[in-house]
Amino acid sequence: MRQLWLDRLLDAVADRGRDLLHPHGSRGSRQSVDELCRRLLAGHGEASAIALARDILRRYQGMDHGTRAEFFHTLLRDFGPDPQQIRECADRYLASPNDGHALMRLVQVVEPPRQELFRRLNMAPRGTASLVAMRADLLRLLGDHPVLLAVDADLRHLLASWFNRGFLRLERIDWRTPAQVLEKLIQYESVHEIKGWNDLRRRLAPDRRCFAFFHPALPDEPLIFVEVALSREVAAEIGPLISQDAPVQDVHDTDTAVFYSINNAQEGLRGISFGNFLIKQVLTELRTELPHLRTFVTLSPMPRFTQTIEEMLSGRSDLGVNRAQLDQVLQDDMRDVMVPDRDGPLASLAVLAEKMDRPDPRLYPPMRHVALAYLTLMRCGGDICDPVAAFHLANGASLECINPFADVSVHGRAQSFGCMVNYRYEPDRLEENHEAYINESRIVMSKTVARDLDGLKDRIGSRTG
Amino acid sequence: MRQLWLDRLLDAVADRGRDLLHPHGSRGSRQSVDELCRRLLAGHGEASAIALARDILRRYQGMDHGTRAEFFHTLLRDFGPDPQQIRECADRYLASPNDGHALMRLVQVVEPPRQELFRRLNMAPRGTASLVAMRADLLRLLGDHPVLLAVDADLRHLLASWFNRGFLRLERIDWRTPAQVLEKLIQYESVHEIKGWNDLRRRLAPDRRCFAFFHPALPDEPLIFVEVALSREVAAEIGPLISQDAPVQDVHDTDTAVFYSINNAQEGLRGISFGNFLIKQVLTELRTELPHLRTFVTLSPMPRFTQTIEEMLSGRSDLGVNRAQLDQVLQDDMRDVMVPDRDGPLASLAVLAEKMDRPDPRLYPPMRHVALAYLTLMRCGGDICDPVAAFHLANGASLECINPFADVSVHGRAQSFGCMVNYRYEPDRLEENHEAYINESRIVMSKTVARDLDGLKDRIGSRTG
Amino acid sequence: MRQLWLDRLLDAVADRGRDLLHPHGSRGSRQSVDELCRRLLAGHGEASAIALARDILRRYQGMDHGTRAEFFHTLLRDFGPDPQQIRECADRYLASPNDGHALMRLVQVVEPPRQELFRRLNMAPRGTASLVAMRADLLRLLGDHPVLLAVDADLRHLLASWFNRGFLRLERIDWRTPAQVLEKLIQYESVHEIKGWNDLRRRLAPDRRCFAFFHPALPDEPLIFVEVALSREVAAEIGPLISQDAPVQDVHDTDTAVFYSINNAQEGLRGISFGNFLIKQVLTELRTELPHLRTFVTLSPMPRFTQTIEEMLSGRSDLGVNRAQLDQVLQDDMRDVMVPDRDGPLASLAVLAEKMDRPDPRLYPPMRHVALAYLTLMRCGGDICDPVAAFHLANGASLECINPFADVSVHGRAQSFGCMVNYRYEPDRLEENHEAYINESRIVMSKTVARDLDGLKDRIGSRTG
Amino acid sequence: MRQLWLDRLLDAVADRGRDLLHPHGSRGSRQSVDELCRRLLAGHGEASAIALARDILRRYQGMDHGTRAEFFHTLLRDFGPDPQQIRECADRYLASPNDGHALMRLVQVVEPPRQELFRRLNMAPRGTASLVAMRADLLRLLGDHPVLLAVDADLRHLLASWFNRGFLRLERIDWRTPAQVLEKLIQYESVHEIKGWNDLRRRLAPDRRCFAFFHPALPDEPLIFVEVALSREVAAEIGPLISQDAPVQDVHDTDTAVFYSINNAQEGLRGISFGNFLIKQVLTELRTELPHLRTFVTLSPMPRFTQTIEEMLSGRSDLGVNRAQLDQVLQDDMRDVMVPDRDGPLASLAVLAEKMDRPDPRLYPPMRHVALAYLTLMRCGGDICDPVAAFHLANGASLECINPFADVSVHGRAQSFGCMVNYRYEPDRLEENHEAYINESRIVMSKTVARDLDGLKDRIGSRTG
Repeated sequence: MRQLWLDRLLDAVADRGRDLLHPHGSRGSRQSVDELCRRLLAGHGEASAIALARDILRRYQGMDHGTRAEFFHTLLRDFGPDPQQIRECADRYLASPNDGHALMRLVQVVEPPRQELFRRLNMAPRGTASLVAMRADLLRLLGDHPVLLAVDADLRHLLASWFNRGFLRLERIDWRTPAQVLEKLIQYESVHEIKGWNDLRRRLAPDRRCFAFFHPALPDEPLIFVEVALSREVAAEIGPLISQDAPVQDVHDTDTAVFYSINNAQEGLRGISFGNFLIKQVLTELRTELPHLRTFVTLSPMPRFTQTIEEMLSGRSDLGVNRAQLDQVLQDDMRDVMVPDRDGPLASLAVLAEKMDRPDPRLYPPMRHVALAYLTLMRCGGDICDPVAAFHLANGASLECINPFADVSVHGRAQSFGCMVNYRYEPDRLEENHEAYINESRIVMSKTVARDLDGLKDRIGSRTG
Repeated sequence: MRQLWLDRLLDAVADRGRDLLHPHGSRGSRQSVDELCRRLLAGHGEASAIALARDILRRYQGMDHGTRAEFFHTLLRDFGPDPQQIRECADRYLASPNDGHALMRLVQVVEPPRQELFRRLNMAPRGTASLVAMRADLLRLLGDHPVLLAVDADLRHLLASWFNRGFLRLERIDWRTPAQVLEKLIQYESVHEIKGWNDLRRRLAPDRRCFAFFHPALPDEPLIFVEVALSREVAAEIGPLISQDAPVQDVHDTDTAVFYSINNAQEGLRGISFGNFLIKQVLTELRTELPHLRTFVTLSPMPRFTQTIEEMLSGRSDLGVNRAQLDQVLQDDMRDVMVPDRDGPLASLAVLAEKMDRPDPRLYPPMRHVALAYLTLMRCGGDICDPVAAFHLANGASLECINPFADVSVHGRAQSFGCMVNYRYEPDRLEENHEAYINESRIVMSKTVARDLDGLKDRIGSRTG
Repeated sequence: MRQLWLDRLLDAVADRGRDLLHPHGSRGSRQSVDELCRRLLAGHGEASAIALARDILRRYQGMDHGTRAEFFHTLLRDFGPDPQQIRECADRYLASPNDGHALMRLVQVVEPPRQELFRRLNMAPRGTASLVAMRADLLRLLGDHPVLLAVDADLRHLLASWFNRGFLRLERIDWRTPAQVLEKLIQYESVHEIKGWNDLRRRLAPDRRCFAFFHPALPDEPLIFVEVALSREVAAEIGPLISQDAPVQDVHDTDTAVFYSINNAQEGLRGISFGNFLIKQVLTELRTELPHLRTFVTLSPMPRFTQTIEEMLSGRSDLGVNRAQLDQVLQDDMRDVMVPDRDGPLASLAVLAEKMDRPDPRLYPPMRHVALAYLTLMRCGGDICDPVAAFHLANGASLECINPFADVSVHGRAQSFGCMVNYRYEPDRLEENHEAYINESRIVMSKTVARDLDGLKDRIGSRTG
Repeated sequence: MRQLWLDRLLDAVADRGRDLLHPHGSRGSRQSVDELCRRLLAGHGEASAIALARDILRRYQGMDHGTRAEFFHTLLRDFGPDPQQIRECADRYLASPNDGHALMRLVQVVEPPRQELFRRLNMAPRGTASLVAMRADLLRLLGDHPVLLAVDADLRHLLASWFNRGFLRLERIDWRTPAQVLEKLIQYESVHEIKGWNDLRRRLAPDRRCFAFFHPALPDEPLIFVEVALSREVAAEIGPLISQDAPVQDVHDTDTAVFYSINNAQEGLRGISFGNFLIKQVLTELRTELPHLRTFVTLSPMPRFTQTIEEMLSGRSDLGVNRAQLDQVLQDDMRDVMVPDRDGPLASLAVLAEKMDRPDPRLYPPMRHVALAYLTLMRCGGDICDPVAAFHLANGASLECINPFADVSVHGRAQSFGCMVNYRYEPDRLEENHEAYINESRIVMSKTVARDLDGLKDRIGSRTG
């Protein structure tokens, strides 16, 4: 805890530093932000740059939505590269591509000066946090101002370089973590909402693990975090895992780790991916701490399942599997189910599943078959349709189990007819599975799922997949 | 101390992580480094990238001098940008310079792929340290392989971005610092050599302060450090400051902080400047910890003094002050001194001063005058000749005092006839002085020095400066 | 945060250690706790003592109320000193009181062996926490088992020695503190209840300070904590201070620190006082962090005010001031107030004040007079009646201001007719005030209070005080 | 490293605190230390006690040897218990030994008031360190002032309570440890001298481990430390282990941990034992960090070997084995050795071994036999003669191997004819071995040693042991 007090002290020091540099205080305020930015870029490394950077960021933070858009337009217009210089340097380089100086010079003049401006802004206290927040603003503006994409490209390039995996630290999060960090879990959890401090406390109980990546310049901000439940079996539904009343397991009695929620926390780092690193490092941590664990699985959503099936019902025909094929399979599966919809079994199943907040056992087989077809046989633009499946399979996980009616919350039904999937991480097979998926587009799966798939293919009468 | 044990543990974890990813161990070894680099660049962010990066760095570390040169030539040749793509993208951009996509694409294709390669190598354990060491190797190779400058430009660009001031932490170093860091001070101190642990201990005694910048990815490596002595007066010679036998002062009896040694510690970060930030932040730290301090000065070398005077004696004539002018001044100053050299007083003074390991009081006035002329009146290529003077004056310091025979070590005499300078940092005047120096080329100085300079100008009969 | 993960690891280590020592596991379980205690006492320092101590504490923790009482009775009966040995050693010592060995031997045999037993139990993981909890149990049992006081004396003696001020660390608590510690503030705050995490967050906002003493063996357990509000004036009522909606002040605009709640957190350390040390060290911390603060006051309850006045109304006559004297004063003060109670003004005032959840301005003067008489003139058993007043005055604080209707909560009215007091801590006067109070029983007070007191004494017609 | 800066800051805070409490500064100096002690004891917990305690300790630190002796005599004479009170309370207690109050009162009056004085001195900054140093002084004085033993008993009692195992922390020490701690290893290592920083660096290399116990109140002071070498075999001599030039092993290639030096570092804690706890906890640490280790042994001196044999040669006859018996064994063993001493083989062996700085292979068998007799058969005052053997055997180690000429340094030969012993710690047998040794006086040993011992007994013709 002492460290914290120190941080506060350092802040005070920074304040004094500022007075030191700006004895007359308000100097910066008479100039426009553009002028301040130009001064900051023109400086040659003197320490007043820190104070200048802070002034610019404070000004920015005081701006409203519209003024921020203007600020970014200024960056686009006035802090881009000089076409004339680019022309000259490109000509010189293309004339002699092996002349190192010509290349160096071209690289220099092509880099938009706003990149250097961002680097200098980073010197301000909490500069990195401010730039991440600035990019979040910018991303929100892109819809209305698509031209700002070029500014975003620069900021993203810089942030991707600074948030290099080599600079990140994995930290365990539990009830001993500072409240300041914990409240961010509550705020950032978007997969399975955390309903206040008591809910959070259960999710950090001794039979749970939570890990996050942190960057040294953002010590209180998790970049991405994963929630894990330790249990005696592969969890087949989400309800018990996120119930505040679930009894706490004795860790020594568990043999399975279920990764049930992964969240990117920083909107300003969108498109800079940490998830694959996180899962594998957490695997290593868990195996070190708890060598008795045998099984590592996820309990994952199928975020485009409902949407894809509904598109199929609306006539989409390029999915590789068609409605008639599925109806043929479901015909049999749903023999015992009252089918009120004359639009056929698939349409009926969709209607039933979306309504159902308590699972009907007769719907498990048909739902499992449709989900299996969606996950393994259908293709959207050449790839498998489900982004979560693509993520885990590319990571080297295998398709372990499909669980109909595993998330019967309103959101779960709307998104995936309540279906969830277990992907399995077998440490010794990750690379092999990864290569199979990437190089051969082959999905590794458990024996059960493989047998199901064989049956399904037969019944579809298809040579797909 | 616990934290350290943890680090060791994390290392073990990393090792296990490696086994996890490479169960068959030797896989990487059958491929050439070039192929490994290509594989690393081709990957799409999968976690095996970390193991791959580690393999490449280990291979590199096992290379001899010649093989490393080859490696860099490969980076130059095979990991540069594609001229054809540059041509196309440059044409497209120049045709419509306001098309953001065209610019983004040009920026992308111009960036040499080795930059991305370096970024991925950084993901390895101790990756950043390895890249800094790699650049140190590269700098040593540049003499024989000037064409590698283009590779260096990329590495330097990246390191400058990563070692942004916003990511650095100032740490105090004292006898409570880990031995692992302390031994690096012994190793890196190049201004006034530290002769072993007992010498180091004196330099970290309670009447001393030592501060360094650290980067989170190199927690044991000071990037730059400054040594400060607290005293009751402005130190006029270096000997007592670096004597192991100097009595330790009671800090409460001191009122002056003397910055007597500043060292860049990382050869691999050459050209990436931290010194100006360091001095000013240390000022702030000292004023916070010891509010009773009144005076902040350096005791600095004049690294090109001897060389410049000897060039003048050899006939160089573009320095703004000439030999005849100095001889005219010294004629009088050295009246009482046996002048064995018929080459005139300046030549005699030079000979005497280089020989003298014990100061002769009669030589103080002439030496001070020559030094003053060197520091303030002479110009080398338009700028003042002394790089240390230029550094402190640009920082906002003022020229406080010139001290002849302040460093009569062999090195001190060879470099600067034993002269040293105090530059003064007055917190409230730094910005003003900085602007005077940068915008008007005006050197702010103490009243005494200013009076001396007026006298000197009169006697030189010059309108210089 | 890393440290925390380490703690977990150490726990795992302890577990393995246990297996190491008890390969056959259940050995301890076949013996009675008494036997285990005897074995632990008989051992000669071997490491299995740690496992034995842990077994005993686990057994204890599994006991119900009644069994614990039996356990303490066993400690009283079987782990006390040997009267025969005491007789012999006392005789020998009294025969030659200057014989050091005789004294040493007597000191040894007099010490009840249970003290050594407690010391050995302390070696178990979390042993200190267990002993503090054990004493809390014991204190609860004392009512029904007064004979156990002798056991409590031993435990208290030991804990007082271990929780010596020299071993405590002052830590600041804020929103960066681990949740595990923060939830204990919610639990332990008994002066002004904290209503959940949002309320806590406000109490730890930037314009507040909270400090606690910690013992290294109980790193997550605050021993005592104080809550401080920074403001622009001496707070005269508690409501705004503990309102969740109070606007957050800019710290730089404040000049006053109000200590508004001090809580002993560990029932098991009852009677071992830390409060005086805490307040003075917090004073020093605040003056270091915020040198612009000018005024340090408490806003304190008067915990025996209502009770004392009611005893007076019921006829108690040994308080140094009597009902008639107060009625005489109030006669005039309450002229304008409807007095429904024919029992006289004091009784009326008591009735009104206890009912009043919104202050009536006409009642301020009489209430202030009665409170002033209670605080300064009345005596209970020779001392001033109010324990909080006695605590602060003995600490060297002065009586700054009496605030009628400052805490109109149900509890506040019941305890002190809603009155609160500001005691002022003037750093330079603490020792002087302390001596005045301890040696001369003189209460130092502000000019306003002193003038009020002079007037009050005149009107009482008393020579008291 | 930040934490350290904080400590410094806290010191500054303490200084200010002192000014706060003693605005007039020199107050304490006019009073005698005795008076200050009396004032400190008389106080009722007020915070000025801290300043008072500090003044007393500073006075004490300024005293010379003689004045310190006087100070302790004052503590003996004036801060002992009151015989009259003891008489009364003892009488009352003995009259009714079951009266808890009578016992409590007796316990209170018997405790010498200097114990409470020591407790209050502990509140000063660095109070605990000062008290430990004070006891070291006192132990040095005991020779000339045996009567001070009673004061020492009090101090020792208190320190034993405060340095309870439950408050100690095991820390690993390596090259990342602060220099301030490391220099204490150099200073405190007394078994195998550390010759400067380079020697120390080798002892902390990656194939070594060093652990120490620390107390939270003495964070820079190891209490006891153990040095461990990791190797591929049970080390049979000390030279290679402590050679600076020994090649560093790859830890993964080792399977044995050799504990080759254990040092108590605090003279002031003499008689308060940590060694048994240390070894066993280090065992646990090593097994956790390096699960591949199979063998844990010591390489230990035999500190009374030479002395015991020389006493035997001088005629001592109560050792259970006599000179004639040993001569009988050696007669044969030394057949091939030139025996210059007509005093018989044992005397000859003694003379030869003490001279020999290079081992003579013909002397190994006789030396091993004598050492074996010394370790297992001889008795000094009923116990085995060797204190180190007694320590390890009581800890549960077994006698693994006797190594003649394993330490041929001057000291090693003088102390133990160059012999050293491996004791083996088998985690699963510790308790069993311990019980065998404590309850049955049975020494558990390796098969080789057991066979040797059988042979030896036969040849001695003895029924001893």
